[in-house]
Amino acid sequence: MTTDVAQVTAIVSAWERAVQDRDMAGTLANHSPDIVMFDVPEPIQARGLAEYRETWELFFEYSKGGTDSFRLHELELAVGDIVAFAHALLDVQEVRCRVTLGLRKIGDDWVIVHEHHSSPWPNPR
Amino acid sequence: MTTDVAQVTAIVSAWERAVQDRDMAGTLANHSPDIVMFDVPEPIQARGLAEYRETWELFFEYSKGGTDSFRLHELELAVGDIVAFAHALLDVQEVRCRVTLGLRKIGDDWVIVHEHHSSPWPNPR
Repeated sequence: MTTDVAQVTAIVSAWERAVQDRDMAGTLANHSPDIVMFDVPEPIQARGLAEYRETWELFFEYSKGGTDSFRLHELELAVGDIVAFAHALLDVQEVRCRVTLGLRKIGDDWVIVHEHHSSPWPNPR
Repeated sequence: MTTDVAQVTAIVSAWERAVQDRDMAGTLANHSPDIVMFDVPEPIQARGLAEYRETWELFFEYSKGGTDSFRLHELELAVGDIVAFAHALLDVQEVRCRVTLGLRKIGDDWVIVHEHHSSPWPNPR
């Protein structure tokens, strides 16, 4: 495993654990000040770390914490020289969600610059 | 603009136009056989080009086509050596959606390996 893959893996894992622990500082760590977040509930997007934090304030109002409160599975990474992304299925208690993360390498450090969280609508068929 | 940025931009633009034209071959072009798609409606994920195609068969049942049927805006790209991603807001007629695309460079060509489409749930607040 390259250093870059190891770093991206560690960031995603630490973020997942911070959300499970309802740890706001850990949840915000390794995120760009310019992050663009597409969250499960409205608004349509959150831009910048202050708006990103608001999405977690809402989440933590409803989350009891623990590993079942925010569990990634089927995580897959694509890591290049200065750009990476990751996607996974995401279970939030019994609600089945999906998450995609976009990262950039700034100097020696990878930072999350984009997140897309969603839960699908019922199929109209 | 680097060649890589120009190529990724052209792929995203051609894909948007193909969906507007209800052109299935154009919609599937430049996609990996192993694509992982998170679509607006269920199922939770579609894996591989055959399942990806099914998501568009459903979409084209409901889409009248035209530029208002699938319009990207606020498109932003991050392009590295062999990995790239893009995110944008997406209007499907009057429905406000978001899309994130993940790409890999295979040889000289960029291909879409991941898509995440969603529309947010109402805010519980």
